[in-house]
Amino acid sequence: MSLKQLKEAVLKANLDLPKYGLVTFTWGNVSGIDRDLGLIVIKPSGVSYEQMTLEDLVVVNLKGKVVEGHLKPSSDTSTHVYLYNHFQNIGGIVHTHSPWATSWAQAGRDIEALGTTHADYFYGAVPCTRAMKKEEIESDYERETGAVIVETFKERQIDPDLVPGVLVNSHAPFNWGKNPGEAVHNAVVLEEVAKMALSSFQINPSLNEMDQNLLDKHFLRKHGKEAYYGQS
Amino acid sequence: MSLKQLKEAVLKANLDLPKYGLVTFTWGNVSGIDRDLGLIVIKPSGVSYEQMTLEDLVVVNLKGKVVEGHLKPSSDTSTHVYLYNHFQNIGGIVHTHSPWATSWAQAGRDIEALGTTHADYFYGAVPCTRAMKKEEIESDYERETGAVIVETFKERQIDPDLVPGVLVNSHAPFNWGKNPGEAVHNAVVLEEVAKMALSSFQINPSLNEMDQNLLDKHFLRKHGKEAYYGQS
Amino acid sequence: MSLKQLKEAVLKANLDLPKYGLVTFTWGNVSGIDRDLGLIVIKPSGVSYEQMTLEDLVVVNLKGKVVEGHLKPSSDTSTHVYLYNHFQNIGGIVHTHSPWATSWAQAGRDIEALGTTHADYFYGAVPCTRAMKKEEIESDYERETGAVIVETFKERQIDPDLVPGVLVNSHAPFNWGKNPGEAVHNAVVLEEVAKMALSSFQINPSLNEMDQNLLDKHFLRKHGKEAYYGQS
Amino acid sequence: MSLKQLKEAVLKANLDLPKYGLVTFTWGNVSGIDRDLGLIVIKPSGVSYEQMTLEDLVVVNLKGKVVEGHLKPSSDTSTHVYLYNHFQNIGGIVHTHSPWATSWAQAGRDIEALGTTHADYFYGAVPCTRAMKKEEIESDYERETGAVIVETFKERQIDPDLVPGVLVNSHAPFNWGKNPGEAVHNAVVLEEVAKMALSSFQINPSLNEMDQNLLDKHFLRKHGKEAYYGQS
Repeated sequence: MSLKQLKEAVLKANLDLPKYGLVTFTWGNVSGIDRDLGLIVIKPSGVSYEQMTLEDLVVVNLKGKVVEGHLKPSSDTSTHVYLYNHFQNIGGIVHTHSPWATSWAQAGRDIEALGTTHADYFYGAVPCTRAMKKEEIESDYERETGAVIVETFKERQIDPDLVPGVLVNSHAPFNWGKNPGEAVHNAVVLEEVAKMALSSFQINPSLNEMDQNLLDKHFLRKHGKEAYYGQS
Repeated sequence: MSLKQLKEAVLKANLDLPKYGLVTFTWGNVSGIDRDLGLIVIKPSGVSYEQMTLEDLVVVNLKGKVVEGHLKPSSDTSTHVYLYNHFQNIGGIVHTHSPWATSWAQAGRDIEALGTTHADYFYGAVPCTRAMKKEEIESDYERETGAVIVETFKERQIDPDLVPGVLVNSHAPFNWGKNPGEAVHNAVVLEEVAKMALSSFQINPSLNEMDQNLLDKHFLRKHGKEAYYGQS
Repeated sequence: MSLKQLKEAVLKANLDLPKYGLVTFTWGNVSGIDRDLGLIVIKPSGVSYEQMTLEDLVVVNLKGKVVEGHLKPSSDTSTHVYLYNHFQNIGGIVHTHSPWATSWAQAGRDIEALGTTHADYFYGAVPCTRAMKKEEIESDYERETGAVIVETFKERQIDPDLVPGVLVNSHAPFNWGKNPGEAVHNAVVLEEVAKMALSSFQINPSLNEMDQNLLDKHFLRKHGKEAYYGQS
Repeated sequence: MSLKQLKEAVLKANLDLPKYGLVTFTWGNVSGIDRDLGLIVIKPSGVSYEQMTLEDLVVVNLKGKVVEGHLKPSSDTSTHVYLYNHFQNIGGIVHTHSPWATSWAQAGRDIEALGTTHADYFYGAVPCTRAMKKEEIESDYERETGAVIVETFKERQIDPDLVPGVLVNSHAPFNWGKNPGEAVHNAVVLEEVAKMALSSFQINPSLNEMDQNLLDKHFLRKHGKEAYYGQS
């Protein structure tokens, strides 16, 4: 895929955010990476989706330095860069303040796997990070946001390829995927799963996580070598 | 009805899923059966509704064997086949992950009849199956999903013609009807009923099931010999 | 207003039901009355809004007898007729299964006045009727539905001109107004008020009814001789 | 900005209310002020948004006297006038009965800052006023509504430039901003924040306000001299 194709994929994925009802105003950004070139394409800061064109996208390198573009990149660029540097297999990242997932992030709670909709995409609970510390917030905040995400996956021994999303405490979700489109796809699923999880707990407050065998079955019928969902 | 007409009915019913807001992405499938031919027409696996054509539909027999079509049938085909084999009067089946009904399925709770909206379509609670066992999940999972549905109706002595829907525990709803269109109609009703049932319990946590006389009245004014709703 | 104009008003009011999101399928009906002629125009039973024309509307007299039209009137016609006979000032009636108001009806609870949105239209709680008795359900059910509504307003000394709506226990709301359009307007307000009342109780479970002075102020600034809202 | 330009901004901001789903019927009004001329442009009372034109807008002075226009101004005009007289830096005001914020107002509760979405726009809790007194309601009600808002900010030492919104007890929200468009922007945010706050408390009933350092960081990265969000 050329850099131009990556830009087109990033633009399309950004425009999908309002289409899927994930964003209010400009509250969301998608990026994509070309691992060979070591270049990341990301949404410019505070530009509305209706007006955004290919030319508005910003290209940064893996140190977060702008190498192309006439606009400032998303204020969350350092978080994206940190994640690309530490999650080696991901090709696209999306951050939104989608209301249901954000409600869980604000509540500081993991979204546990309660049913097969969750199991089809996330192999276990979508974790919520710890609250960030004063020093982290006051220093390089956006970079530290990436660091607390990576710490969460490392300490809890969660594989980011099997659980492609996270809730940043008191903030909102980040999702990722093999490319920008898959990242947004996972963000749509997370929002749906977050909505249903609250309703399920309201219907049955003593509800526990779903059966592990069922979780295995559904995740593995869509992912990995034994997958048999969809057309081959 | 010819097989071509059945295909048209199945296609229309599948396209109605996004129209009625029952599906995200490709999370839903509708089938229909020609009892004389012993043939089932079903949605292909993982194909988007916008792109689906008559040619994409798959025809399987009552053993689940594909007899026509160039695509793989829905991964839930074995569940549909099992239900057609055991519920003799049904002509269409739909499975979705519609959010309100799925929230109840995840919570593992029946949707009790709380009002006349429910009573107009379902003659009593919409049951939730027991959780599936490890052996069921690990063997022929989709067939066993059908089996646990049939078991639920048999053990609890519920007539599937009077209660055209079920919640599969930790999973999502299935609905059926005399034809594919009626199955989807019942799925729309179930979603509405599931939404209102949660709100009603939130308004009045000590709420009980509706009066049996009122349930009889409403169900029978729309179904059976004494029905007087609609145009004759 | 001629009978033709009344029919046009009734048709428009019925078509407004899907426009305002108050109905699923055909779950709602509006009627209007010409008091001079003693004739009621009402929606036919089970006809979809998209297909409905002026010719499909049914005219009945104040005894509920069809005097014009080729279709069966709404199955709820006897309820409408009963209300017109007992609430002398009303000119239009609407019945729907709109989800928020229906959730309160299913819960068997009045919607208390909690804020000025409610107070602008309903001068006090929107009452929920008692449950109907076996004899009432099994005899002339739809007429008895009207009777339990009228009983509620009489026994609780509520003026139907000041509280233009009711919740029928385990069923759904009815609203009315000076004409069919105003009845639907009040149904939209009731749905909004029902939704917000549940949220308000969830935010503050020990919430009480609003201050009576504020209720007086808001209702009377829109209704009666001292009204000063809108253009004169 | 000429008075004509102000009118255009006020008209556009009023038309944005239905666009953003903040209003049912005519339940909302936006105004703007020209501080140099001492003139306020405001929506007429009870006119639908679809029909509203520049000519329908009403111009009043800082004493609330109509100086231009053929229609009556919004019944809430005295509240707007009071706020312009006491909050010196604001250029636009909006009042709606948007359902989520109104639910909090009816519940009589502040919306505490629970996450960065809130922190990006409101520097601390959005306060709910005390209930209004009998004398206030019965005298110059709309003016007194303004007075209780100003009292709330004064007594609780909240800067209206840093917290551009309020909940009037048992009533609904008011928002403001540097101009009419920003006021509506803030109303959209408040509605989103109100919705998520209820969900967050439902997910975690023992939730506390967010960390002050994170609140500082997010508010100050979008506001004031050190802001770095968006394009410069």
